[in-house]
Amino acid sequence: MNIKQVLKNNFTSKEILAGSFGLERESLRVTKNGKLALTKHPEALGDKAFNPFITTDFSESQVELITPVLQTVEEAHEFLENLYDIVALEIGDELLWPQSMPCDVEDENEIPIANFSDEFGRPKGDTSYREYLKNKYGARKQLISGIHYNFSFDENFIYKLWSLNSNNSKLSYSRFKDQIYLKVARNYLRYRWVLIYLLGASPLVHSTYEQECNKVGNEMSQINCEGLAISYRNSACGYENKTVLYGNYTSVTEYTKSICNFIRNGSIESHKEFYSSIRLKPYSIDNFLESLLKDGIKYIEVRSIDINPFEKSGVNLLDLKFIHLLLIYCLVKEEDEFELWQEEALSNQHFIAVRGQNNISLMKNGKSITLGSWLDEIFVELTNINSEFELEMEDVLEHIKLKISNPKNLPSVQIAQQIKEQDFIKSHLKIAQQFKENAFNNRFKLKGYEDLELSTQILIKEALKQGISCEIVDRFENFIKLKKDSHVEYIKQATKTGLDSYITYLIMENKVVTKQVLEENNIPVPKGIEFSNIENANLEEFLAKACVVKPKSTNFGIGISIFTTPPTYQDLITAIELAFEHDNTVIIEEFINGKEYRFLVIGDEVVGILNRQPANVIGDGKSTIEQLVYEKNKDSLRGKGYKTPLEKIMLDEHVDLFLKQSNLTTKYIPSENETVYLRENSNISTGGDSIDYTDKIGDEFKMIAVKAALAVGAKICGVDMIIEDYKNPDRGFGIIELNFNPAIHIHSFPYKGEERQIAKKILELMNF
Amino acid sequence: MNIKQVLKNNFTSKEILAGSFGLERESLRVTKNGKLALTKHPEALGDKAFNPFITTDFSESQVELITPVLQTVEEAHEFLENLYDIVALEIGDELLWPQSMPCDVEDENEIPIANFSDEFGRPKGDTSYREYLKNKYGARKQLISGIHYNFSFDENFIYKLWSLNSNNSKLSYSRFKDQIYLKVARNYLRYRWVLIYLLGASPLVHSTYEQECNKVGNEMSQINCEGLAISYRNSACGYENKTVLYGNYTSVTEYTKSICNFIRNGSIESHKEFYSSIRLKPYSIDNFLESLLKDGIKYIEVRSIDINPFEKSGVNLLDLKFIHLLLIYCLVKEEDEFELWQEEALSNQHFIAVRGQNNISLMKNGKSITLGSWLDEIFVELTNINSEFELEMEDVLEHIKLKISNPKNLPSVQIAQQIKEQDFIKSHLKIAQQFKENAFNNRFKLKGYEDLELSTQILIKEALKQGISCEIVDRFENFIKLKKDSHVEYIKQATKTGLDSYITYLIMENKVVTKQVLEENNIPVPKGIEFSNIENANLEEFLAKACVVKPKSTNFGIGISIFTTPPTYQDLITAIELAFEHDNTVIIEEFINGKEYRFLVIGDEVVGILNRQPANVIGDGKSTIEQLVYEKNKDSLRGKGYKTPLEKIMLDEHVDLFLKQSNLTTKYIPSENETVYLRENSNISTGGDSIDYTDKIGDEFKMIAVKAALAVGAKICGVDMIIEDYKNPDRGFGIIELNFNPAIHIHSFPYKGEERQIAKKILELMNF
Repeated sequence: MNIKQVLKNNFTSKEILAGSFGLERESLRVTKNGKLALTKHPEALGDKAFNPFITTDFSESQVELITPVLQTVEEAHEFLENLYDIVALEIGDELLWPQSMPCDVEDENEIPIANFSDEFGRPKGDTSYREYLKNKYGARKQLISGIHYNFSFDENFIYKLWSLNSNNSKLSYSRFKDQIYLKVARNYLRYRWVLIYLLGASPLVHSTYEQECNKVGNEMSQINCEGLAISYRNSACGYENKTVLYGNYTSVTEYTKSICNFIRNGSIESHKEFYSSIRLKPYSIDNFLESLLKDGIKYIEVRSIDINPFEKSGVNLLDLKFIHLLLIYCLVKEEDEFELWQEEALSNQHFIAVRGQNNISLMKNGKSITLGSWLDEIFVELTNINSEFELEMEDVLEHIKLKISNPKNLPSVQIAQQIKEQDFIKSHLKIAQQFKENAFNNRFKLKGYEDLELSTQILIKEALKQGISCEIVDRFENFIKLKKDSHVEYIKQATKTGLDSYITYLIMENKVVTKQVLEENNIPVPKGIEFSNIENANLEEFLAKACVVKPKSTNFGIGISIFTTPPTYQDLITAIELAFEHDNTVIIEEFINGKEYRFLVIGDEVVGILNRQPANVIGDGKSTIEQLVYEKNKDSLRGKGYKTPLEKIMLDEHVDLFLKQSNLTTKYIPSENETVYLRENSNISTGGDSIDYTDKIGDEFKMIAVKAALAVGAKICGVDMIIEDYKNPDRGFGIIELNFNPAIHIHSFPYKGEERQIAKKILELMNF
Repeated sequence: MNIKQVLKNNFTSKEILAGSFGLERESLRVTKNGKLALTKHPEALGDKAFNPFITTDFSESQVELITPVLQTVEEAHEFLENLYDIVALEIGDELLWPQSMPCDVEDENEIPIANFSDEFGRPKGDTSYREYLKNKYGARKQLISGIHYNFSFDENFIYKLWSLNSNNSKLSYSRFKDQIYLKVARNYLRYRWVLIYLLGASPLVHSTYEQECNKVGNEMSQINCEGLAISYRNSACGYENKTVLYGNYTSVTEYTKSICNFIRNGSIESHKEFYSSIRLKPYSIDNFLESLLKDGIKYIEVRSIDINPFEKSGVNLLDLKFIHLLLIYCLVKEEDEFELWQEEALSNQHFIAVRGQNNISLMKNGKSITLGSWLDEIFVELTNINSEFELEMEDVLEHIKLKISNPKNLPSVQIAQQIKEQDFIKSHLKIAQQFKENAFNNRFKLKGYEDLELSTQILIKEALKQGISCEIVDRFENFIKLKKDSHVEYIKQATKTGLDSYITYLIMENKVVTKQVLEENNIPVPKGIEFSNIENANLEEFLAKACVVKPKSTNFGIGISIFTTPPTYQDLITAIELAFEHDNTVIIEEFINGKEYRFLVIGDEVVGILNRQPANVIGDGKSTIEQLVYEKNKDSLRGKGYKTPLEKIMLDEHVDLFLKQSNLTTKYIPSENETVYLRENSNISTGGDSIDYTDKIGDEFKMIAVKAALAVGAKICGVDMIIEDYKNPDRGFGIIELNFNPAIHIHSFPYKGEERQIAKKILELMNF
């Protein structure tokens, strides 16, 4: 079967490219001096034994990030970046080490093995296996970190291939699928040097690691101090078995047989210890070899990928796409008959790993070939596949072409250069620090989910942190499904949950009913009336008190009249007529003097209190309003179009008009600490500030907010309260609205004040 | 203080007429032969000790209907009619006796005293008091039934009166209010004869009651066989104390003192036994006399009103308004100084009661005056009050004018006439039967609530039946509040309740999410896709199966194409294009052949299953379609404009067109048992029939409906299922929709099949 021809004639590029992708990335936690952190895995990340996304590998300080199975590499890459951001902000002033080869590890005995103890502190199996590895390989070697790339073709793709092939073959579908993956695996082993060459990024090691290389009695293991190596991780002193083990890739039967032999002769203790560059993966991980034999291969795991120090996720997206292309190449590439191909391939790997930056020759089917000419040959074939299958991977080809044509573009060369300039530790720390800052600036959002509301992004981010899976059931509606083990919760717009009852929502949705329920519970609300016809309005009581006249629905205060002292009858009528210009229902309410605060009640607790202030600047005595706005807008929390917790202040004609009322322009230089407001309204959407008051406002008010939520039966509720003086509960106050879908991002990321852990509170309330 | 002048100068008619109203009405349950029913108070009406609306009075067979305190007499009257309807349909073939004087009671000892036993069958205090009354007055006398009219002026009205008066008086507000009600009470006692004359409706008694009258040694107690009496109930052999007791109405102190004296000298056992024509009522009923003294008078109770046999409620609405006018008259009418006014008033009452149909004279301040001239005098004064206060009670004045000018219009005269024609028992039974039929025809609605949805009316009706109070919190939204003791439930549109969680509603509201959840729970749903752009649609699978193409939102099947066999590609595209003409989102779904059934799930039970059929008639071999439709439309369940469970069939051009397809016209005479459909669609709104299948469809399907509701967490859920053959679960079926706000009236009142007690199920689920 000429697969290339079959693909070309029968498959669309979409069918060929369809597949499932999953990424894993290890990373050491290090102190700000580049030493291995000796602290515990952060508690905020949940129990590492049960968090499917964030756990530890060999060492307690070796974080492992794991994406779920996703339908595109883009999604997997984004997910990995998100996991990075999540962890980076939970490790205090520690950093995530952006390099496959370990950081500064003076004393190997200090390396903490990952502690998987049960609730009584007894070590679990996972810990004892790590003890075994430590004794066998040494803990330092186990710190080597990398990227694993899990891949399967789309089931329909293989099925169609099998169908097209069935006339010529007696193979069952399952065995056919095995043959597909076995061929890919064999070719991958042959061509892995290409991947190591192009992606390798561990050209040097820290001085505390050098002894590991010297232990290996092999030319290829000597440290090349000139930094002409590509990947020590893939070298003989990298992450390899004690003895060279060649698995048998002719069939699944032979493959499992060979692994069983390695175990039987004591080379390894379990299939997990078989450090092959590519692994064949079964349907049931718990029952590895039996499942492989019985059910066949489910997917393959590519394991030769170094951490790319220049990438926050540890791997470049175009490189990930390149691996995909390489695996398709491995599928279609005819195999040579050379018998000692495995030995040759390993030798090529080791040669590339340690000498790859030199102008070297590799062995191809027993014959020498220069690195350059073989690379060119493969590049032509890749280009050819791309165009014949119409894969539209021109960007990927361009990306690797740059590296092939000029080794200066190789990550190994680039990091070696930086290390030479700064030293191994400092150069990596600097990068790690930048990634951490980037994570901080992204803290309110989740990559790949930016089309969702901020509140939903924040909630999903917290869920992932805790190892709760998230499925988006209706993207447009911000409708998600959270799942941990058998516990499932559907959530819409972050705060519409199963915690609240349907009638609670209906009560809050109806302002008249809400007010009635609050009044019945003796919770102060501004007394008011609503009417569509002035003749039905009983205006008398409002002639005796300060009051507000407003259209029932209003934005930005249009059509509102405020009487801070009792109005005359004529003034009241005029105000009502004005309000009727904007709505056919008008509300008159008792006026409560004061500021408006949003109390966010979750469960029986006020978890955040916020006050909004109109867009403003505070003078420094030197800068103009224009300059102050420019500076203020630099805050990463400020953006445009509701993609950030705050909006940039726009200096538009509204601002000019507003300033003009005080005879000011944007060229005015406010004196030091002078606050200049730029607008009337305090909406966040026009550049207003959100100020956290959670700790400033006393329990008297918090209890009233909780009582209001309780009155309508709400578990999650935004309570809008007007308070005359928050330090003095004896002064006036009143609840003006209850919100059944309160935003959480405003409390999570206020302009001023503590960032509140609202998403965590919601998940807690859901018993996750 | 000249109240009349003060009112005229300072008060609007609205202020004068404002007040609170409550009605009570007793009625005997009788057999269809007019004998006292010996059965128990119906269980469906709840525990009579705790139902505030429907209880029993002296006898177990003496139903007492009690309205809550309402703001208008109209509401009170409507509420009373509703209570009547509720009870009338819960007493099997018994009837409610429409007459104050008792029915056929052969043996006094048979009269069952109301059984207020506790859960262990032990009699409670209420029962022993009745034993005492039976021994003292005889059970027969205690069966006399009437109407009580509870009234208070609006608090603001009295307050304003007091304010205007305060310069001239040292009275506290509370004592002032007492004085107001005391004056009304005194004048009421003086003028009650007017009310008895105009409203009296017990001009004869049944032969088994005559002995009661003969017992009384008083001329006024003799039975006037010529039927010239007005009200035996208000006569000496009516509902009176053993000895004449005159309460002292000069002040609350004197009033309570006089009652205490009656008790002390053994005339009565408790204030409850003081059978005065008007009672002064305190704020705390449980603490009657103390509360009167301490808190003053809260309201007054007018007790002279006979049951009007011609009114379902037992009292005419214009008469109720007349009483209101009379009480205002009692407030403004200057009092005469005549000392023996109480004796004179009682004498006038007795004279009117037994001789009122004659041309009699009464005593006014010790002087004789003819009934006619005194009536005219009072009528002039009432007319005067009406015009001076602008009360707009012309209709009331007209109503009583008719009676005054021609005694034939008096209810006493009219019922006497009917009794003479038919006999005492038959004439009343006939009326009772008519009222019962009227109650049956009204069974799906609630008077005064007709603007609410039928489902809400049905739910409120069931609530009232069980003694659960209902408050309408938002009329337009069908938002109600049910309350029994401390148990409160808010309900919107009958089935939106606190039973369901907010997220359950959100899941059901989103068709995509609903389907996903059902699929995850292995509940059969038609597989389908939804798309806004044909290029994104994966059509292939639908080329292989029967399917339906439809616009996402559709009414009456417009834009829908059904392929009962797999369509060709071109046909599918054409159908999609048609669907896109009606919506910008199109759905293609697997086609399930069969009928659609609505399963109503409440809790974990299917409480109703319904199938809708297009408007149709079934032939009798004689009538034309037109005639058959005319007959079918007579069903009281059929109406116009969604005010009834079914709609009348309209013979419009759509029907003509539809019939034309079969070459028929509405003049066609279908043969016997031939069903002729008149329309394509099965909507109830176009005259379709609703057919109950609850008992026909087996548990297999019911379990699936319950499982679907459980899957989304719904406690109340309408499950729409397509079923190929409801007798055969092995054939095709699938759930096409879940409804979070299912109508209940369609199950409560189907065209064919059992009327299901849905409202009862909802209240049960709420633990009422």
